Amino acid sequence: MRLSDIGGEFGFIDRLRATYASGAGDGLVVSLGDDAAVLDVPSGQQLVVTTDLLLEGVHFRREWSDPYSIGWKAAAANLSDMAAMGADPTFAFVSLAMPAEETVETLERLYDGLTDCLGRYGARLAGGDTNQAPETLTVNIALLGIVPAGHAWKRSGARVGDTLLVTGTLGDSAAGLALLKSHGAAGADKKGRGLLGSHRRPHPRVAAARALRPLNIVRAAMDISDGLAGDLPKLCAASEVGAQVNISDLPVSEALQAGAAETGRAALEIALFGGEDFELLLCLSPADVEAAQVALLPTGTALTAIGRITREGLTLVQPDGSEEAWPEADGWDHFAP
Amino acid sequence: MRLSDIGGEFGFIDRLRATYASGAGDGLVVSLGDDAAVLDVPSGQQLVVTTDLLLEGVHFRREWSDPYSIGWKAAAANLSDMAAMGADPTFAFVSLAMPAEETVETLERLYDGLTDCLGRYGARLAGGDTNQAPETLTVNIALLGIVPAGHAWKRSGARVGDTLLVTGTLGDSAAGLALLKSHGAAGADKKGRGLLGSHRRPHPRVAAARALRPLNIVRAAMDISDGLAGDLPKLCAASEVGAQVNISDLPVSEALQAGAAETGRAALEIALFGGEDFELLLCLSPADVEAAQVALLPTGTALTAIGRITREGLTLVQPDGSEEAWPEADGWDHFAP
Repeated sequence: MRLSDIGGEFGFIDRLRATYASGAGDGLVVSLGDDAAVLDVPSGQQLVVTTDLLLEGVHFRREWSDPYSIGWKAAAANLSDMAAMGADPTFAFVSLAMPAEETVETLERLYDGLTDCLGRYGARLAGGDTNQAPETLTVNIALLGIVPAGHAWKRSGARVGDTLLVTGTLGDSAAGLALLKSHGAAGADKKGRGLLGSHRRPHPRVAAARALRPLNIVRAAMDISDGLAGDLPKLCAASEVGAQVNISDLPVSEALQAGAAETGRAALEIALFGGEDFELLLCLSPADVEAAQVALLPTGTALTAIGRITREGLTLVQPDGSEEAWPEADGWDHFAP
Repeated sequence: MRLSDIGGEFGFIDRLRATYASGAGDGLVVSLGDDAAVLDVPSGQQLVVTTDLLLEGVHFRREWSDPYSIGWKAAAANLSDMAAMGADPTFAFVSLAMPAEETVETLERLYDGLTDCLGRYGARLAGGDTNQAPETLTVNIALLGIVPAGHAWKRSGARVGDTLLVTGTLGDSAAGLALLKSHGAAGADKKGRGLLGSHRRPHPRVAAARALRPLNIVRAAMDISDGLAGDLPKLCAASEVGAQVNISDLPVSEALQAGAAETGRAALEIALFGGEDFELLLCLSPADVEAAQVALLPTGTALTAIGRITREGLTLVQPDGSEEAWPEADGWDHFAP
C-alpha cells in the first residue's frame, strides 16, 4: 500500500495518532492533534532537550538498514544524548519527510522501531510533523527529558586526576559499518552479525545513567557518538583539562576481536576511531570508581577505566608504553569513501 | 566564503555558538556545546512544544525567498503554533542540513532571519544539530514555550453559539505565492510587494495571544496555516461542533483587494483557501467579543467575527445569502502546479 492510497500526509497522520502516539496522561496534557503538545514538568526537575536530524544517504542507507532499524537508531541517538546528561527521557517529537511513493508498511516499520526504542527506555511519542518530500526520507527527533534540578551531567566538570571511563565496548558499530561498506548487506551479515546489530540497533545507556545519577559522583560526561578519538577532545576542551588514554585498556567485544580482520584494521584502532558507539564517557574521582561499577551491576553495563585526566595535552599510551600525541579523528567519517 | 573553507559542519557550529546562541541565564542552564540543553520551567507553568520541518523545494524555494526570509518564516511558523496555544515562546532548537558548497554568508543570513524573528517574539536559540546534506537545505525547528498550568488554548473547547473570529487579514501570503508562481520574483515584486512581504516574512500572533490569555475567555483556538477552508474543519472536528461562516465577513487587506486580479482569483476566494496566513482562529462567547477586541487594541491586531459555531455541519454563507456546503480545501496546495 502506497502512502498516496491512504490520503497522503494527512491519512498517515491519522494512522500515526491511532497507533503510535501517546494519549494524554502521565505528564502529557495535550497530545497529537492540536497546534502543539502541552506537558507537565514535575517541580524540582529541570528540562533537558536534544535534537537530531537524520538524512537518508547521509546518516542511513536503505540498502544497509531496514526501516525498523532506521527508526530504532534515530531514537537511540537522541536517547544516548539524554543518558549523557544523566537525564530520564520523557517525550519525543518526530518530524518526518517522505516521498509519496513510500509504502505505508515501510513507514509503519520505521515508527515501530522508533517507538519500541523510545518505550524500552521510558519515553513516548508526543507530537511531530509529517511532510511529503520529493526523493529521500528525512527524520528529525527532538527529545525531552527531566533531571533533578542542578544535577545534569555536563562535559565541563572533569578535574585533574579523575579516572576516565567508558561503558560497554567500543568500535562494534564502526566495524559493522565497515563490513557493510566492503561486503554489502548480505555479505556483512555472514561475516559479523553481532557487529551489524550494534550498527543498526544500538542500545543507549539510559539505564546506566539512571543507576549512576543518584550517587552524585559523575564529574563530567558525554556520549561517544563521533568516536572516542573525536569526542574526548571535546570533553577536555569543555573542562579545560588534558587526558592520557591507554589504548590497551579500550574495551573491545569478542565480536570485534573476531571480526576486525575482515575490515582490514586492528580491533583497538576501530575502538579508538569508532563512531556511533553510543557509550558513555565518564570522569570520576578514582575513589568513586568501584562504587560506580557496583551500581551498574544490575544493569549489566561494564564500566572500564581507560585513562586519566591530566593538566593539559591529550596523549595515547601505546601497548609498548610509548606515549604519542592524540590522533586526528579524521579516519572514520560517516559514509566516507 | 564556502562552508568548506571554515572547517565544514564543526567550523560553522563554532560560529553559530559565538554569534547566535544564547548564553546560560534566564532559564537556560546549559546551552549549546553539551550533549543537550538544560532549562528551568517556572513552577505553575506547563511546557508547550511544537516542531516543524521545512524542506527546500517543498516549503520554500531559493529563487523566491532570500535566506533571511527563509529563516524568518521557519521561526514564524513555529511561533504561530505557540500563539495558537496561548503560550509564550521561550527556546528554539534548530536542526539544519546544508550542502558543503553553501556559502557561510547565506547561512548567516538564514540564522539572522531566524534569530531576529525569535527575538522579536521573546524566544531564543538554545541548541540544535548541524549536518552536511548532499543537495538541498533542510531546516527543522522544535520550539518550546510556557503557559500557566491549565490555561493552554486547545482546538477542542468550542461551544454551540460561540462567535468565530480571526485576527488580521487572510489570503495575503497565498496571493504573494500566486504572484511568485506566475511572475517570478522580480515580476511579483512589481505587482504586489506587500503581498510578497506577507508570504516571505509573516508575523505570528504572539503579542495578540499574550494580550488575550489573561482574560480567560478563549474557548478554542488554532492558527490558520493550511488556509481557513482546510483548518476550520479541524477545529470543528476537535470540538465536535459545526460552524457557519459568512464569506463576506472574511477580513481582506487593501493589498489583497488591489492585487487579487493579478492572480486570477477573487480576493475572498484567496482569503478562504489561503495558506500560511499564520493568523489565529478563535472561538469566544458572543458576550466576550468586545472585551477581546479592546484587549487587542494595544497590539494593533484586528479581530473580526466571521461566523458562529453550530451544532453540526459546516457551511459557507455566500454574499447573496445562500448557504453552501463547506468547500474542499484542495485548491491551494503548496507549490502545486
